[in-house]
Amino acid sequence: MAMKIVLIGAGQVAYHLGRWLAEKQMPVAQVFSRTAQHARQIGASLHIPFADEWEKIDQNAGLYIIAVKDDAIAPVADRLSAVVGRDRFAVHTSGSVASTVLAPYFDRYGVFYPLQTFSRARQPDYERVPLCLTAGSDADRAILETIASRLSGHFYPISDEQRAVLHIAAVMVNNFSNHLYALAEAVLADKQLPFELLRPLILETALKVQSLPPGEAQTGPAIRRDDLVVARHLAYLRTHHPDMAGLYEALTRSIQEHQGKP
Amino acid sequence: MAMKIVLIGAGQVAYHLGRWLAEKQMPVAQVFSRTAQHARQIGASLHIPFADEWEKIDQNAGLYIIAVKDDAIAPVADRLSAVVGRDRFAVHTSGSVASTVLAPYFDRYGVFYPLQTFSRARQPDYERVPLCLTAGSDADRAILETIASRLSGHFYPISDEQRAVLHIAAVMVNNFSNHLYALAEAVLADKQLPFELLRPLILETALKVQSLPPGEAQTGPAIRRDDLVVARHLAYLRTHHPDMAGLYEALTRSIQEHQGKP
Repeated sequence: MAMKIVLIGAGQVAYHLGRWLAEKQMPVAQVFSRTAQHARQIGASLHIPFADEWEKIDQNAGLYIIAVKDDAIAPVADRLSAVVGRDRFAVHTSGSVASTVLAPYFDRYGVFYPLQTFSRARQPDYERVPLCLTAGSDADRAILETIASRLSGHFYPISDEQRAVLHIAAVMVNNFSNHLYALAEAVLADKQLPFELLRPLILETALKVQSLPPGEAQTGPAIRRDDLVVARHLAYLRTHHPDMAGLYEALTRSIQEHQGKP
Repeated sequence: MAMKIVLIGAGQVAYHLGRWLAEKQMPVAQVFSRTAQHARQIGASLHIPFADEWEKIDQNAGLYIIAVKDDAIAPVADRLSAVVGRDRFAVHTSGSVASTVLAPYFDRYGVFYPLQTFSRARQPDYERVPLCLTAGSDADRAILETIASRLSGHFYPISDEQRAVLHIAAVMVNNFSNHLYALAEAVLADKQLPFELLRPLILETALKVQSLPPGEAQTGPAIRRDDLVVARHLAYLRTHHPDMAGLYEALTRSIQEHQGKP
């Protein structure tokens, strides 16, 4: 496939998408950032031509991937459309923004959402990252599927409505779990215990649900209604971390209500 | 080291400890369960002699490991002590019970707590499992450390007080995270989305904190105070999963209070 792809943005998602496309022999033709320094940096790290002025954006790409912060998607699409024309095909990469945010600027629009947390320091296993695709027409969806099928073993055509709900679930398993790790670290610090004690347990918890449904992996005092242990934990938290006591109680109740065997 | 070890119990922890000790060339001499069928099963799966009558328990072991449910530790220790004598060395394996629960029955007692979630279906990387050791005397602690050092690269002498707090932290990162996975699965089901979509994200979330402190790995709408996204998620949950809306709100507030940059 010889489709020319232009990448807009210089953040984590732009960086990893650029690397990922190159690894799969679909190098992007150009990367653009409004900030000269960012444009130069991402161009250098991806080894591809960069631009930092709107007028220099390649006008003949088959796909423009707008990988910028949620707030910036509409203004970027506005400027991009003025340069390349509204008959081009543009997608954004956000889990929390409807595809239709692009409709005022492009006749052909969609979303190319990699469901993963990206950071500069780590390269996730790209092949396993699910790609969630939304497009306004069957033809454009086919284009996204062709690209996605070369990038990952897992791609899903989904609607804006589905992606909105998916994003809630992603926040729960990613942001909220990570916050529990942070709270646990604070609890350990009370007694001079290092966070590294918990790392194998955290990893095994995540590994277990790679094959089991989480309902089958649930263990602990809440699900087995060990009220004595729950009361002891709550008493400790009320004294030492009053802010966490309410959370502990709410999560325990939620486990019992949601997963409790009748 | 030729110390004779007897294992009491036939659950997940007994099974994995038995396997682990055998793998490290310290096979237990005997495994005991009060339930004849369980005794036979664990004896067969570990390829070691088993007993199901108290009187048949080996009376000359250097260490008795009581790997039974929290509630059963005291009654089992009582019966065991009557058979083998209170001058023997006995430990339990629980994260949530003080070592002193054994004091009425044994002069020499302690805790050998592997900080991991065990299930029959999966074998965790034993070498990486932290072993948390408590003993009533320096000499007995040295015995536990000798065994632990052959089992795992990571062992920690800790007090009962430290283990109690460690258990709270373990509940948070294991039971509570797993419950978030279960809630996320329920949210996805609203829109016919499969749980497998979230698996790579769950794994990467756990992998990130294997090297980073969780505070540095925190991302998402709560920490970046994206009130619009938070409000949209809450509105959806209030309508479709009212029980989850309170949790979402409490976790978001906790992230902002605990980790929020000033």
